[in-house]
Amino acid sequence: MNTSTRINRDASTQTKKGELDWWQRDDLCYRNGELVFAGNNVADLVWEIGTPGFVYSMPRVKQNLGRLRDALDRAGLKGRSTILYAMKANRFAPLLAAMKQSGLCGIDACSPQEVAHAVSCGFEPREISFTAGSLSRKDFDRLSRYPGLFFDADSIHGIHQWGEMFSGSEIGIRVNPGLGISRQGNTKLQYAGNVTTKFGIYKEQFHEALAVAKDYGMEVTKIHFHTGCGYLNAQIPIWESIIGECKWFVEQCPSVTRVNVGGGLGVPHVSADEPLDLDLWAAVLKRQFGDSGLHVEIEPGDYVMKDAGLLLLEKTYLEKKRDVLFLGVDAGFNIAPEPAHYSLPFQPVPLYYRGEALNPCHVVGNINEALDVWYENAMLPDMRDEDYLVLINAGAYSASMASNHCMRGEFRERLLV
Amino acid sequence: MNTSTRINRDASTQTKKGELDWWQRDDLCYRNGELVFAGNNVADLVWEIGTPGFVYSMPRVKQNLGRLRDALDRAGLKGRSTILYAMKANRFAPLLAAMKQSGLCGIDACSPQEVAHAVSCGFEPREISFTAGSLSRKDFDRLSRYPGLFFDADSIHGIHQWGEMFSGSEIGIRVNPGLGISRQGNTKLQYAGNVTTKFGIYKEQFHEALAVAKDYGMEVTKIHFHTGCGYLNAQIPIWESIIGECKWFVEQCPSVTRVNVGGGLGVPHVSADEPLDLDLWAAVLKRQFGDSGLHVEIEPGDYVMKDAGLLLLEKTYLEKKRDVLFLGVDAGFNIAPEPAHYSLPFQPVPLYYRGEALNPCHVVGNINEALDVWYENAMLPDMRDEDYLVLINAGAYSASMASNHCMRGEFRERLLV
Repeated sequence: MNTSTRINRDASTQTKKGELDWWQRDDLCYRNGELVFAGNNVADLVWEIGTPGFVYSMPRVKQNLGRLRDALDRAGLKGRSTILYAMKANRFAPLLAAMKQSGLCGIDACSPQEVAHAVSCGFEPREISFTAGSLSRKDFDRLSRYPGLFFDADSIHGIHQWGEMFSGSEIGIRVNPGLGISRQGNTKLQYAGNVTTKFGIYKEQFHEALAVAKDYGMEVTKIHFHTGCGYLNAQIPIWESIIGECKWFVEQCPSVTRVNVGGGLGVPHVSADEPLDLDLWAAVLKRQFGDSGLHVEIEPGDYVMKDAGLLLLEKTYLEKKRDVLFLGVDAGFNIAPEPAHYSLPFQPVPLYYRGEALNPCHVVGNINEALDVWYENAMLPDMRDEDYLVLINAGAYSASMASNHCMRGEFRERLLV
Repeated sequence: MNTSTRINRDASTQTKKGELDWWQRDDLCYRNGELVFAGNNVADLVWEIGTPGFVYSMPRVKQNLGRLRDALDRAGLKGRSTILYAMKANRFAPLLAAMKQSGLCGIDACSPQEVAHAVSCGFEPREISFTAGSLSRKDFDRLSRYPGLFFDADSIHGIHQWGEMFSGSEIGIRVNPGLGISRQGNTKLQYAGNVTTKFGIYKEQFHEALAVAKDYGMEVTKIHFHTGCGYLNAQIPIWESIIGECKWFVEQCPSVTRVNVGGGLGVPHVSADEPLDLDLWAAVLKRQFGDSGLHVEIEPGDYVMKDAGLLLLEKTYLEKKRDVLFLGVDAGFNIAPEPAHYSLPFQPVPLYYRGEALNPCHVVGNINEALDVWYENAMLPDMRDEDYLVLINAGAYSASMASNHCMRGEFRERLLV
């Protein structure tokens, strides 16, 4: 969510065939017709946790982090790369505590409150990289309490503020290459490109930024650039071209020892999406940075958490309106805004499935807004005798962005360890 | 927010001239160059309340409610009309308590939690009208605890559930005329129209609905229809045509004594918008229902609260990126999503203004998302020596929809009485 490049999907790319199998994997699948997640019968989880409820799998989180780590290692970046989990994706405290225990990642934080929360969950300030813009005096005061925290300035103003507090320290600069992939038809999701955005420091101001850092005796040791959002295999070439463009900033600055390419690694949302090929992805990092000696940081959020979480819902009604079948559930877009606001669908799946015929219905929530639709034309078996429904891919940017709109903000969370 | 018809605005309609005067009125204006709101110097409010902070004017709320009441009375609906405030717009407890004290309105609630909150703020259940869909078993159980609450069923399922609990009672039916005004280019805000939505009961199922109500010995005494969202004078003719269409439902059902035309009365957001002419508006209700003897209910939210609230912000930085001037503030779209998610801009205004020249800048927030822009090309005086900025029209669908995204959910609220 923290960047630009989302992939445009129109309805025609959502193959209706296979809606109840494209997402199945060893730890999330039907066994004897019953939905199983991380070794648990999901019907039991519904009973224990209640609805609406988010359930997260720590084994899956470790798998996702491990897969990233292995790909980086295979690309020759072993010992020269760091995974910083973008905690804005999901900050559930037991999850962060378990991530710390795993030793697989550090933290990408974007507010002083996130830093405080990460520290309270066990991370050391030196394991946290901070990147954010529009910081207030109060924000800088709070950040100053975490010695060892690494700060990426998003503006020249930020360099001044950090320099006032920590002259002589190391600092990172978040840059904006002035080009990017925009999501068709939605310039609001554009992080970089022709439109000038609030993010980072542009080429036009970069030398001034370096001069300011020098004035405070600070050494610029990191260049940070967001490069995409939700990208899959097809977007890798353009992702690489943006990274190539960002190397201009690195070249201007001999003191740089690290580059941070941000997050944006996508996961499949519909049956037509293919999973990201991590070797293809890591090969880009190898080509661009393999010989440079630079340490490479990545900041995945979605890729770590999205497919590690389910949203458990109760069916409220099943009813034909005009000629369309609606299946209502007991929660709305306010507790998980991605399907409604970001066009990133959560596939609905039933607790039980034994190969019955599938028919379309609209899965809708309980909020009094037209956009409160979970999934249009979801292919589901006959739901008349079912009491519950599960949405997959609900592990990231859901609970962490929840609101109490219409006072419908109640939900439960559980981490499966 | 609870309906369909938003007005499409493109940048070309936002006249840049007059950005710092179109919104001025007796209780919100510059006096001797200082911004004044409800008799308070806003600089003093900033000092007392802090930032980010919402401040609401109860005198303005009473003015807005009084203006609606007067227009209804002038149209011959005195004693035959009720204003039900759509509390989802803003549920700040001191505000609801003061509304109850004013005696000017009842409540439109859309969740059991809202009903409980309204009751805790002093409203009697009989002063509350409940309209919502996708209600769970738990929701119906909670609603059953408020005898006197008026229930509008949004589905045949809802009629069954209410009938099981309150056979023999009165009930309302929310209907869907199957036509509506859609916001150009955004079918997600469409409540009614060619696309079949989750809202209400369509003509095709209406006779079944009446039969189900009859089976439970319930009398259908109200027809509820949402008819628009954010409409101004130009949309009144189409608003009237939709109301006309909805009368079909009333005609099918001789026991009906009330109609509820929903909310949707808009307020100006940019200098090019003209305020809604309430006599023009009330004339529609008179034409459609004046001779019918029916009691008319309206459910305004925006119209009551939007221009009665300010968002007080601290300037974080003022900096040129590429060739664009950015003014950062200490809060983002997560505490007030309308500008980012619904294209409803909040005009930025400075604390002090004495007729200086205006220049464009982008007002941006502190959330790490590209859509976190408060206002593009805001025309403001030189802000170098200013520490604060105010956004007007922030009284509705802001705090009530706030999230803790990026853990940036902290804000203050104050009601000026």
